[in-house]
This record gives sequence, C-alpha cells and structure tokens, in this order.
Amino acid sequence: MSLAEVRPDNDADVDVGAEMAAIGVAARDAARRLANATTKEKNAALRAMAAAIRDNAETILEANSADVDDTRAAGAAAAFIDRLTLTLDRVEAMAAGIEMIAELPDPVGTVMAEWDRPNGLKIDRVRTPIGVIGIIFESRPNVTADAGALCLKAGNAAILRGGSDSFRSSGAIHAALVQGLEAAKLPATAIQMVPTRDRAAVGYMLGGLNGNIDVIVPRGGKSLVARVEAEARVPVFAHLEGVCHVYVDRAADLDMAKEIVVNAKMRRTGICGAAETVLVDRTVADSHLAPLIEALKAAGCLVRGDDEARASVPGVTPATERDWSTEYLDAVISVRVVSGIKEAIDHIERYGSHHTDAIVTADEAAANRFLSRVDSAIVLHNASTQFADGGEFGMGAEIGIATGKMHARGPVGVEQLTSFKYKVRGAGQVRP
Amino acid sequence: MSLAEVRPDNDADVDVGAEMAAIGVAARDAARRLANATTKEKNAALRAMAAAIRDNAETILEANSADVDDTRAAGAAAAFIDRLTLTLDRVEAMAAGIEMIAELPDPVGTVMAEWDRPNGLKIDRVRTPIGVIGIIFESRPNVTADAGALCLKAGNAAILRGGSDSFRSSGAIHAALVQGLEAAKLPATAIQMVPTRDRAAVGYMLGGLNGNIDVIVPRGGKSLVARVEAEARVPVFAHLEGVCHVYVDRAADLDMAKEIVVNAKMRRTGICGAAETVLVDRTVADSHLAPLIEALKAAGCLVRGDDEARASVPGVTPATERDWSTEYLDAVISVRVVSGIKEAIDHIERYGSHHTDAIVTADEAAANRFLSRVDSAIVLHNASTQFADGGEFGMGAEIGIATGKMHARGPVGVEQLTSFKYKVRGAGQVRP
Repeated sequence: MSLAEVRPDNDADVDVGAEMAAIGVAARDAARRLANATTKEKNAALRAMAAAIRDNAETILEANSADVDDTRAAGAAAAFIDRLTLTLDRVEAMAAGIEMIAELPDPVGTVMAEWDRPNGLKIDRVRTPIGVIGIIFESRPNVTADAGALCLKAGNAAILRGGSDSFRSSGAIHAALVQGLEAAKLPATAIQMVPTRDRAAVGYMLGGLNGNIDVIVPRGGKSLVARVEAEARVPVFAHLEGVCHVYVDRAADLDMAKEIVVNAKMRRTGICGAAETVLVDRTVADSHLAPLIEALKAAGCLVRGDDEARASVPGVTPATERDWSTEYLDAVISVRVVSGIKEAIDHIERYGSHHTDAIVTADEAAANRFLSRVDSAIVLHNASTQFADGGEFGMGAEIGIATGKMHARGPVGVEQLTSFKYKVRGAGQVRP
Repeated sequence: MSLAEVRPDNDADVDVGAEMAAIGVAARDAARRLANATTKEKNAALRAMAAAIRDNAETILEANSADVDDTRAAGAAAAFIDRLTLTLDRVEAMAAGIEMIAELPDPVGTVMAEWDRPNGLKIDRVRTPIGVIGIIFESRPNVTADAGALCLKAGNAAILRGGSDSFRSSGAIHAALVQGLEAAKLPATAIQMVPTRDRAAVGYMLGGLNGNIDVIVPRGGKSLVARVEAEARVPVFAHLEGVCHVYVDRAADLDMAKEIVVNAKMRRTGICGAAETVLVDRTVADSHLAPLIEALKAAGCLVRGDDEARASVPGVTPATERDWSTEYLDAVISVRVVSGIKEAIDHIERYGSHHTDAIVTADEAAANRFLSRVDSAIVLHNASTQFADGGEFGMGAEIGIATGKMHARGPVGVEQLTSFKYKVRGAGQVRP
C-alpha cells in the first residue's frame, strides 16, 4: 500500500511507529527534491492539483457524505457538522484557492538583502524552503488542500494529519493532490497524509520523526494546540486563542465605532479574529456605551458587562473575572469601561492573547500609541479585527495565524513557510 | 539582596525555583519598559555600560583571577583556561564591542514592508523586540557583555546564566552593565545574571519561567547544546556543531585552494566556522591533492584521509567513517576524494551540520549549483569558512551562529533578536 493511500480503519497489524518513521524519511527525500524544483514545476503541479480536485469532485463529496453521516450519527453539534461538510461550491473554492496559490510569486530564491563587505565579499541573504512541515488539523477537510498547496509553493514537503471525523474527506482530497504532483513529475510523497486514525501518529509527529519534521503547525481548537505545545519536540507555529479587543477611545466617532464593533464580533463569531471584549473610554461612556451595547444586542449578541456597562442599558448580564480572558467564539461579548488608553492597553496586555486588537479613534497620537504599545501580532486603527486573515492581508492564502513571536507572527502564508541562507561570493579571500 | 548581585556560593536556604520565578517576572516587566525605550535611551545605557566596564577593569580582573586560580587548581586544560582568562586588552575589547553595538542602527520600529489593500487599509510590517531572551553559556566571561548589550539594543530583557568557572568574572562584568542601565535610567533588571551556580537554575530557565522566557540561546559545547535542545520547553536558537567543509572543485585554482583550505582550518581551530573536512574532485587529485595536504602539514595540521589521500602523500593517517562527522576543533582535518560536485554535495548533506561550507572553483555554474544546493546557513564561493561570523558579515556583533532554520539562521545579531507585528491603518473599514 502506498503512503498516498488511506487506510480506512485502525489495523492492529500495522506498526504505527515504523510507518510514521518511513513517512518522515520519504518527506525528507521529497523536500530535497522540492528545494530545487523550479517555479514552473511547482505551479504546474498546483494547477494539476486544482484540476484533479474538480475532476474528482463527486468522489470527494461521496467520501465527505460518509464522514458527515457518521459524525451526525455520533451526535455532533451543528457548528461542527458545518465545518466538516463539503458542497460543490466548497470543493470549487478549494480548487480556486490552489490556483490562486499558483499565481503567487515564488518566495524561494528571492534575495531578501544583499551587501558588499570592505574586503570585497558579496553577501546575499536568500529565501530557502524550511524542509518538512507537519500540519495537525481537525474537522475542516479543506485544510488538506490549503496546507498542502502552500507548503508545496514554498518548496516544503508536507505531512498532514487531519481529524478522525474528516478522515475519508481528507483522504479523497489528498488523492487528488497526489494526482497533481504526479502529473507534474514531482514526488508523490511531497504531500503525505497520515494513513491512520490512530492518535499515536500525532505523538510520533510531535517527536519530530527522527529529525525529519522541521516545524509543526497545529490548526484547531484549544485542546489540540495545548497538546501540541506541551508535547512537541520540534518548533511549533504557536496559535493561541484569539481573545481580540476593540478599544473605543474618547476620540472615537460613534457611528464608526458601532459599525466596527458589530462587524468585529458578529460578521463571523467562530473565527479567531472575532472580537471578544469591547473596552470603552469612560470619558465617552455617557454618549457611546448605550448605543454600542444596543447595536450589539440588535445584531443578536449577548452582552456581559462590568457595573457601568450594566447600568447603562438593561439586559446586560454581569461579567466575571473569567469573561475577560474568554474566547467565546459565539454571539457573546464582554464590555468594560476603562479610564483611558493606558488602562485599555494594560487590560489587553493582561487578559488578551496577543492575536489581534483594534482602536477606534480620530486621535492620531492615541492610535500610534496603541499600535506601538499593544504587543499583538496584528494591531488595527479604525478597522475591524475580522481583517486578521492572510487573504485580507494580500498574502493570497494562509495556513493559520501565529500568535508566537518566533519566525512567523500573524498570518502564515508562503513567505512565512520559508527560511533563508547566506550566499557569500569571494575571489579567494581568507580571514586575517 | 538585589538580583543584580551575585551570590558567591550555593546557599541551601534559598529556594532556587522561587528565585528564578522572580527573575522571570522582573525580566518580563523590564521587557515591557524596554519595548518602548527610545534609541537614545538604549544607546546611552550601552555607552555607560562600556564606561563602567573600563572604570571597573581592575575589579573585573581581580574577580577573573580568582576564577582562573580555582580552575587551574582543579586541573583544567590550557585551552579552557585561555577561554576563561581576561586581560586588560580583553576587557577593553568588551567595552569597545558594546560601543560598537551602540553605533548599530536600532532595529526596533523599522518598517520591513508596507503595502496598501484595495479596500484602503494600509499595512506596515514593523520590527519589535522579542521580549525576554535566556542565554546559557560556559566559560567565556565576555559573553556576559556581548549578549547583554545585543539583547538591550534589540529592546529585549536578558537573563544570563554563565558557567560556574567564570561565575565571579561574569558577576563583575554584570555589575558594570547594571551601572550603565541605571545611569541611563533603564531598569536594572533589563539584564539579569542568575545569582547561583546551582545547576537547577538552568532547568528552570529551560522550562521557560512560567512563560517569562521567549527564547533560549545556548552558547557552548556539544553537551550544553544537547541538554538545552532536549529539555527546553521554549524555542531555542539551535547551534549544532560546525562540521564545515571546503570542496576543491575540478576548476579550482591550486594556489587559491591552498590558501583557503589552510586558512579555513588553521587560522583558529577552535571556532565553529573552522573547516573539518576537505573534499577534492578526483579530476584534479593528481595535481591538487598532494600540494593541499603538504600545505596543511606545513601549517602544523594532522591529516586523516581516505585511501586516495593516503596514497598521495606519506604521513596521512586513515580516516574512519566517524571522522567525516567529527568536529575536531583542533589542528586535525579529514581529506576525501570525490567524483565531482554531486558527490561533494551529497557528502556534505550526509555528514555536515548545515553550518558553513565553501567551494573553491573558477567555474561560475559549479559555484552557483553548490551555493543553491548545499543546505547550510552559510555557503561560500572562493572564500574561507572562517568568515562565518557576525562581525565579518557586517552585523557588528553576534550572540552566536544558528544552524536551525527557524527565525534565525547563521550569525545571530540584533536584527535576529527581533520579531515583528503588523500595524493596520484604516478609515472605518469593516469586513464584508
């Protein structure tokens, strides 16, 4: 059985450790080949992958139906089933997404900086692939296509480990990706899917497969990320939760604040860039607080608040200490009145997750202070936190949003999936 | 007792865990302040630190004498004692090094990229400090000054843990750094020295001090680095050993090859950029091999070789399989004949440490192939591997050379000690 295929159920006869080790070795070999693949080869593979996804749409949807049926029978929540479910539109969006990645500039080989030394040495800092990326994700089957395509574009091999519930869907998508790789004569093992639901496979990946995984990207909920961060023996692109804030400053235009706050919370409540807390400057509490809360309630949002927020509008339930650090991922928001920008920044520093935070203000100095001092991956002035997205940043696509500060921070697109090296050219120089 | 002071010996009454936790909290607080320190403040502190080192040269040398006496009495090797020993010249070099760091451009706040989106959002990618850097080093006391100053310049707080043998020397240097911080009214806790020789302190640092260390930089030998990589629960700037190669291509000028090979090995044998293996293209073995080996021998180098190398010159001892992956850090080199550039690249990939590798050739195409395909932090054409150094790269100073591919690779200078954030400026945009 080839590694590209998917074994539908656990098989006691299979040594998962040995199987995972072999996947690691194959990935490293593929990475060596990919590091020297031309842009043309990689883009040809991506376009062939998109075509194969379209050609196999029916097969993918059938596999997905089987996953959805089992998951529904097991009594999963509606939101979970929605994330799992594919439609013809969603399959087309996957294919189009891969084609968009083909259109992106190839980061590999880009000269990031170049300079000459007094001794005549010429130094270039050049982007290179990282090597092998391990991606551990949950129910969304489209991650298979997005992550595989992004890794390939950056010249990296990928080892994908999807959720058990989307196992057949991911497998069918993966088979299409492999068709694309083969059509472009790139190694089929450039994108491998872990062929077992056995959770031990995740443990092996977190151990680094004997040095054959360079970085792990977890995509999923808190418990997955926590396990990855606790157990990984290789670097991880950390993604903590998105406890995002909108601070409504004393110089905020009320209409703009209302629009931004409602969008930041309610456009989609389940994404990591959704706002979870609104902070309002006490100076404008009289004028702004009630209209902001009313606008949220009118949009269908439950509001929890401190005493001042509760006093301003009926129907606000009390916020507890825990609310300030809670990522609701739902139509719920907490509202707090603060004494000004300093207290707002302190609150965000204390309770936030360094993901995405916004200020609404007409005061440029206040905005600059907020953007400089809030220590988050993304800080916005007069814009919704829901813009925290690689596509919205113009990166074409993202594999996730990193909240750590090492290597990648914010949206992780093709550039963030690269490393670099120094190329030094001389004419016989030796060091004195 | 202030954390800036040094407790000369282990004290059973001290709870090292609690003490280390307090150091972590103080470092995080200092890092918040440093993140917003101006370039002027940071440079004033650096210049005051340099002045304090000069003013306290006598104290530093006395502390160092005590360290050296104890270490010599314990029977340490001469090379070890040399690394430990300070002289007035070395103290002056430390002070001058800090002043050079003051002269470097401040990386913090630099706009790395900026672009506009069709919806009018303006996005800046801006350098920020990382936060708190933990540095674990061994006998060289000057690392105290270099590492502390580099971290400060990049707006980071530093927690330094030096070797037991240099404990008093590092403490005296650290006291001077604190004087400089205080003179510039920056927090004394911006650069802290672990005030105990107790090895448990290292374990606490590797655990991350409750999230208060963002990255660990190990500076030392293989066993230190191995412990750090095995135990660290936070990101590490990996520094594997430097198994560096010089490949003498068929199109190599013999005189240039001799000069580069001898310099790469013999200029200083104890640094990580020293060459450990010479690979010679069989096509020019008849003309090049014997003169290269003779030149190495004439420079005082022991040569180990494969059969062809041994046949070319008397006095070459046999190289075993283990030699190809050995970092001698001494006047010893291994020599191997290869069938051409492909075999050279394969050898480097198999036995090397992805640190620094050079090709000597007059053939541009071969050079480009080598520079692209050898997967090392630094790849050189017609230049000595001993140029693997932040100072030689024009970075002013370095905290070490990273052989990993995440975040930093190659010399780690002030830029590599930064992270970044995205500042997004709008005019009320919400996401459709």
